[in-house]
Amino acid sequence: MSVIEAWVAPGARQGLERRQVDLGPIGDEEVEVEVEHCGLCHSDLSMLNDDWGMTRYPAVLGHEVIGRVAAVGPAAKGIRAGQRVGVGWNAGSCMHCRQCKSGDQHLCAEAQPTIVDHHGGFASRVRAHWAWVVPIPDGLPAADAGPLLCGGITVFNPLARYARPTSRVGVVGIGGLGHMGLKFAAAYGCEVTAFTSSERKFEEARGFGAHHVVSTRDPNAIRRRGGSLDLLIVTTNVQLDWAALIETLGPNGRMHVVGAVPEPIPVPVLALIWRQASVSGSPTGSPVAIETMLDFAARHGVSPTTEHLPMSRINEAFERLRAGEARYRIVLDADF
Amino acid sequence: MSVIEAWVAPGARQGLERRQVDLGPIGDEEVEVEVEHCGLCHSDLSMLNDDWGMTRYPAVLGHEVIGRVAAVGPAAKGIRAGQRVGVGWNAGSCMHCRQCKSGDQHLCAEAQPTIVDHHGGFASRVRAHWAWVVPIPDGLPAADAGPLLCGGITVFNPLARYARPTSRVGVVGIGGLGHMGLKFAAAYGCEVTAFTSSERKFEEARGFGAHHVVSTRDPNAIRRRGGSLDLLIVTTNVQLDWAALIETLGPNGRMHVVGAVPEPIPVPVLALIWRQASVSGSPTGSPVAIETMLDFAARHGVSPTTEHLPMSRINEAFERLRAGEARYRIVLDADF
Repeated sequence: MSVIEAWVAPGARQGLERRQVDLGPIGDEEVEVEVEHCGLCHSDLSMLNDDWGMTRYPAVLGHEVIGRVAAVGPAAKGIRAGQRVGVGWNAGSCMHCRQCKSGDQHLCAEAQPTIVDHHGGFASRVRAHWAWVVPIPDGLPAADAGPLLCGGITVFNPLARYARPTSRVGVVGIGGLGHMGLKFAAAYGCEVTAFTSSERKFEEARGFGAHHVVSTRDPNAIRRRGGSLDLLIVTTNVQLDWAALIETLGPNGRMHVVGAVPEPIPVPVLALIWRQASVSGSPTGSPVAIETMLDFAARHGVSPTTEHLPMSRINEAFERLRAGEARYRIVLDADF
Repeated sequence: MSVIEAWVAPGARQGLERRQVDLGPIGDEEVEVEVEHCGLCHSDLSMLNDDWGMTRYPAVLGHEVIGRVAAVGPAAKGIRAGQRVGVGWNAGSCMHCRQCKSGDQHLCAEAQPTIVDHHGGFASRVRAHWAWVVPIPDGLPAADAGPLLCGGITVFNPLARYARPTSRVGVVGIGGLGHMGLKFAAAYGCEVTAFTSSERKFEEARGFGAHHVVSTRDPNAIRRRGGSLDLLIVTTNVQLDWAALIETLGPNGRMHVVGAVPEPIPVPVLALIWRQASVSGSPTGSPVAIETMLDFAARHGVSPTTEHLPMSRINEAFERLRAGEARYRIVLDADF
């Protein structure tokens, strides 16, 4: 079906409008998905506001899609009609560069973000390259799986790369990403420390699996955790007391930032040298990493904590997100 | 012998004086080494000047020692009298902490730097804990091996941890550390790029094994190397164009700083995120890492490029180092 229903952002910081959009004929390697649910990620808000200067209006946002395969292009591989699948931050990549051929498709220089180069999931249907359409395992509650496709893989990726069940893992920021980080780190078998600026979230953080909770507003509390962590995943995008956070790392520790902090962060070199430590970052993950995460989530019963709204109330959903009221991820259920 | 001859720093920025020093009885786990050669490292100059606020005068500096074992404490293990050995940055560690028991003795919180907690190698004899006294392989020219014990292991450690012969490795700063970094990276089989602020060093950098040479004074030249490196080892301790240097990293790349840059360096988070990259640091290396490096150096004929002076001309040697005239490492030959 080339004409879809969609919630369209007509311009920066404007309300979304329901419109019909003509996607044209399906591409040879594309898969078309009938949207059932789509998570609302903070980056949708950044894109709506054009915070990153890369939004092309009219834009269809939404990149934590769960749905059923409605159509399959003639050259699409490994995906069949009717399958329940997910589409996340990327909807395509070149497939022939060194990164794509190495299984690091998320690092492809021509990776196509769903809400930049394609039309996103706040719509009746969404299309993506077959390689980026990921089957949802049966054991995973589909209605809540959407946020795993972007927020989930963003925090799971550093865990899978750098942690073991014996690791001491900290998560800074207990929001959409951070609460999934706590759940995944706990399921991974790690000793988990939550860092949050909000004392109201202390108990909930423990509920998500944190063994320790530290206030980021209290520099002494951070410093008392000195040398206690192997991996610290930072999910916020604001400036923090980076020197104190790096001091929480033990020997060979790593602070891994996934929040899009806009300004450079000051890194004390000697603090890295003495503990042989690293500061790093990463974007989402590859299709295989997403599949691995979904299998792990299904096996361990890891699911985002969500609020559901019908997609027709999408503007209200953006308001809740903007106000910092989402607990912890809003999922919009398609009601076209 | 408890009384040794030593070149002693009486106070900050003062000339060294030859004195006798009484070391007292040898410790149970100590080894005493008769010094033959000792490299002069930039950190000796920093310690002489008390740049780091941790010098205790009168100080005996020198921590790139080559010599013969003269005496062995009753509980020392694995070292015998007469053996040719080296002593580097550290002369001891607690041996019972998690790091020591894991083979990361260089990350021990109680590691004892030779020139802070012990007496250094600008002396007739030096003592160190047996674990930190490393045998010198027969194939290595002993007169030039000293600089490997500190400067060498400092650049070899990140290579051994992070590089493969297929890696594209950059080295920033072609001085005492950097010239050994180039030689080691070339011997490791890597594609090697040298970054230097000194055009006079371009040809020499190629002689040390660099396939490409880039001026750090030319931001465009740095940017033309964008995305070309897997590992960039920074050996200088001055502020650089960090954003441009991080841009030289390819996907999964790493910038590893071993120069003691005193001020925090600004790290652009998004540049790390998009390329899944790391910024890291490390101090010297463990005793086993040093042994591994010495074996590798002997097998591949890697040797520092040195200037020799008799130790009695030590004040002249410090002057040459201070003036940036050392090409590329000064070694002092004991002449007590």
